[in-house]
Amino acid sequence: MDLLADVSNPQNFEPQSQISHLALDIGGSLIKLVYFWRNNDRGRDDDEQRSHNESVGVSDSDTGQPVLEGRLHFAKFETSKINDFLEFIHCKKLCLGGFRDCTAPSSDKIFIKATGGGAYKFADLFKEKLGITLDKEDEMDCLVTGANFLLKVDGDGKFERVSGTNLGGGTFWGLGRLLTKDENFDGLLELSHQGNNRVVDMLVGDIYGGTGYGKIGLSATTIASSFGKVISDDKELEDYKPEDISRSLLRMISNNIGQISYLNALRFGLKRIFFAGFFIQGHAYTMDTISVAVHFWSKGEAKAMFLRHEGFLGALGAFMSYENQSLDGLMVHKILQRFPISASSAGNKISCSLNSDPNGNESIECTVRGT
Amino acid sequence: MDLLADVSNPQNFEPQSQISHLALDIGGSLIKLVYFWRNNDRGRDDDEQRSHNESVGVSDSDTGQPVLEGRLHFAKFETSKINDFLEFIHCKKLCLGGFRDCTAPSSDKIFIKATGGGAYKFADLFKEKLGITLDKEDEMDCLVTGANFLLKVDGDGKFERVSGTNLGGGTFWGLGRLLTKDENFDGLLELSHQGNNRVVDMLVGDIYGGTGYGKIGLSATTIASSFGKVISDDKELEDYKPEDISRSLLRMISNNIGQISYLNALRFGLKRIFFAGFFIQGHAYTMDTISVAVHFWSKGEAKAMFLRHEGFLGALGAFMSYENQSLDGLMVHKILQRFPISASSAGNKISCSLNSDPNGNESIECTVRGT
Repeated sequence: MDLLADVSNPQNFEPQSQISHLALDIGGSLIKLVYFWRNNDRGRDDDEQRSHNESVGVSDSDTGQPVLEGRLHFAKFETSKINDFLEFIHCKKLCLGGFRDCTAPSSDKIFIKATGGGAYKFADLFKEKLGITLDKEDEMDCLVTGANFLLKVDGDGKFERVSGTNLGGGTFWGLGRLLTKDENFDGLLELSHQGNNRVVDMLVGDIYGGTGYGKIGLSATTIASSFGKVISDDKELEDYKPEDISRSLLRMISNNIGQISYLNALRFGLKRIFFAGFFIQGHAYTMDTISVAVHFWSKGEAKAMFLRHEGFLGALGAFMSYENQSLDGLMVHKILQRFPISASSAGNKISCSLNSDPNGNESIECTVRGT
Repeated sequence: MDLLADVSNPQNFEPQSQISHLALDIGGSLIKLVYFWRNNDRGRDDDEQRSHNESVGVSDSDTGQPVLEGRLHFAKFETSKINDFLEFIHCKKLCLGGFRDCTAPSSDKIFIKATGGGAYKFADLFKEKLGITLDKEDEMDCLVTGANFLLKVDGDGKFERVSGTNLGGGTFWGLGRLLTKDENFDGLLELSHQGNNRVVDMLVGDIYGGTGYGKIGLSATTIASSFGKVISDDKELEDYKPEDISRSLLRMISNNIGQISYLNALRFGLKRIFFAGFFIQGHAYTMDTISVAVHFWSKGEAKAMFLRHEGFLGALGAFMSYENQSLDGLMVHKILQRFPISASSAGNKISCSLNSDPNGNESIECTVRGT
């Protein structure tokens, strides 16, 4: 699978001068990219382009502030292929999406906003191979800034990390790869669509014999033990359908995330829980399972909420941090979505269409205002 | 592995008349048995046995109450081999450890106290094959009664089930079996001793490059994603050592249990959390991981506590429910441990020797007092 389809495809990827505000979130599994693509017709010559730029609004009619209109683009890349990624940035001159610090002694240094652990781990590599300095932003700060941006909230920047889990998308992917031989995250999700977790999961009904354990609210179909049925089957790994295993894994991880999230929400009296991160990526069954888990454990008191572009919160936050940088001669002080993206509660049935192209890439219209 | 070594070995298993109070906890994976074995020298003839019975105390010298002294024995069997188990009960006349309801119209009916889902699921099977009626006791009631007995607490019988998880021993066993081809729970635990989870787990240091993410208290060795390192390895399942996989699984499940338990304890302001169930079975590394998880998430505020015979709480509770039954002509009203078994807090380093024989079977001395 091509993880960066719309940028890596030469037909989709044209004048670098239209790209700005490149921001990276380099996690353990994936590199998430966000960049701004100024509105412009492709293939125009420089004069036409300049005149078009003016027509799409170099200044706001009300405030007189300079304005850039365009789209925010989201893309992802596997972190394990970091060298390919560096090569790609080099070939495509993506570093033009960074900025030069004009106040620094050597003003030809290019800075790119970056967050996530990889911003630290790979800092030397970026410098050595591309001469790029990663301007590091704190991961949690970026996550909150990104969420606030998507929610159109002017947060006060105060937040607290209250918990976490080591059972997330990486676990789903890692275990899924070992158990099904499918190497791709998206492939595993695809498999899970066609699977039946009851083949491997031990349900309350398997233990109690169809009646469930109603006294404590456990129906016969409640999962008592993920993968618990495997114990007593006289089968090898090869005898199970990858679809069933993937489905069970997805439910195991989603259930657990829902439960841990709810237990944490309870500590702070919160009724709405927003879920983000690449594990979800708009996948209806994942959102459904998380929603059901939150509903189950909270006895209907709490609700799971989902954001679009949920895998890009960190990269978006790094993107927002360009607001304090001089870019294209503008001090960017406001990046606005042109169309609000509302959070949606999935409930038990989800019908959700993401604002994404057929390659799985996503974009939103937005405006950059200068001072 | 022989799961019921000390009973199934004919050398260990002699006159059935010494057995009473057989109680079962039939779970999804394991059948747990508890029974009382009256003190007696083996191989005596009936007269000698009777006289010995009298000498070990038919009445208490202070109260004049009838007293039986002996040992409680604990054993386990795989639930999937239920038919072997029934055959075994039949051959060994273990049903003599049940009771006859003298007040019932047909006084030859044998009752055995049983709890767990299998007490419902397999009730007809016990009746049909052995003519035994399972006298069902509620699973949660038994768990609490068993815990109170081991803690020497006279509980008021009030309790609330506040949470649960579908990631427990069954998941460890099921996933472990699929990933390592080791079919036995104990074999998987054994493997985990020699493993290194860092081979498959993605640590914070793998993402941040050795420095960790100290700002939010995550050291470089904290597990960021269980099995997350597998994603970027160019390896097949066969290329990993079963030891490393088993170790990672054990930490994944134990960590999660510790975290969910702590989050629940927090709701009720509890500082001590008692862990039970067959997943633990006195395994030092499991207890250590759970303890570390509780310590980590509670920032040292809460403590993990462990009971001996922790896998038998349900069976013990079913055993205790014989207190209301006439047995051997006695109305048993008190079953006392002769040696208190204190709960132990594992802390970060555990050196713990269980009261078990080399076959992994366990027993405790106890006294049954009649009215």
